[in-house]
Amino acid sequence: MTAGSGGHETRAGEVELDFDPGAEADAGIAFIGRLRTPWSRGDCPKNLRQARERGGDFRVEVDPPYRPGLKGIEPGARVMLLYWMDAARRDLIVQAPAHADGPRGTFALRSPVRPNPVSLGAVTVLSIDVAAGVLRVDALDCFDGTPLVDIKPWIETVDVPPAG
Amino acid sequence: MTAGSGGHETRAGEVELDFDPGAEADAGIAFIGRLRTPWSRGDCPKNLRQARERGGDFRVEVDPPYRPGLKGIEPGARVMLLYWMDAARRDLIVQAPAHADGPRGTFALRSPVRPNPVSLGAVTVLSIDVAAGVLRVDALDCFDGTPLVDIKPWIETVDVPPAG
Repeated sequence: MTAGSGGHETRAGEVELDFDPGAEADAGIAFIGRLRTPWSRGDCPKNLRQARERGGDFRVEVDPPYRPGLKGIEPGARVMLLYWMDAARRDLIVQAPAHADGPRGTFALRSPVRPNPVSLGAVTVLSIDVAAGVLRVDALDCFDGTPLVDIKPWIETVDVPPAG
Repeated sequence: MTAGSGGHETRAGEVELDFDPGAEADAGIAFIGRLRTPWSRGDCPKNLRQARERGGDFRVEVDPPYRPGLKGIEPGARVMLLYWMDAARRDLIVQAPAHADGPRGTFALRSPVRPNPVSLGAVTVLSIDVAAGVLRVDALDCFDGTPLVDIKPWIETVDVPPAG
């Protein structure tokens, strides 16, 4: 590894942008809550499937002004969470993950390292308390305290792309 | 309808935030390209299923610095596009859509009107030109020129939530 222009470690084959997308604010994100998970750096599952296998207490906490937006979400609902991977660098456009056989473009990877670090979590709601702004869900794959960006109903007829 | 605090029209039962989430920039989004579609205000399909039925020429245009990030995406790949619905208001937390039987929380709806107007498009790649930064995809459900935020591989084992 060598130190990249942003002061980060860079592996062979990786390509950095010569600017920080985080400094190019074309639009602003408002954090609407936080995700509560058992995970921190070093022990975080790589994806939701692994998180589901390991299990734990997974909660979505929504800030007070946004809680009326939860009305209509029922236990058993399938939802898509959008969250902001605030610990990830944003300036790596080709990456060499340890599991891959060579460098790959950032948009061909699910790495949290990307120009806009919005991650997706397709989960099932176990319980919901609208007044308290708390949803318990079946799995989460991010660090405890990760900022929440959005919650959407997951809809099979639009959210599964046709096989190529 | 009555004029809301933000100068927007508000329907019976709708609830507005008393602030504009767009002014609460906890993080910045960098637009990485644009979506090219046949749609504009008044004739836009409500979702990807409708867009697929109507058909058309649908393209993703990625800006030059981000094009190396496309390496590894092949025709036939299923991807998730994230895009920024820049024409949508952000301050409506309970909505009364024409198709629903009453007001519902924003997070129980797929409306583009939401605190952070990031939309999701689960699509199939028909062709890709990495050097030109152009992907043709099977459908898009947003206005022509909508800003692109991210492209991710769609992965069935993590992107389909378990049935509740």
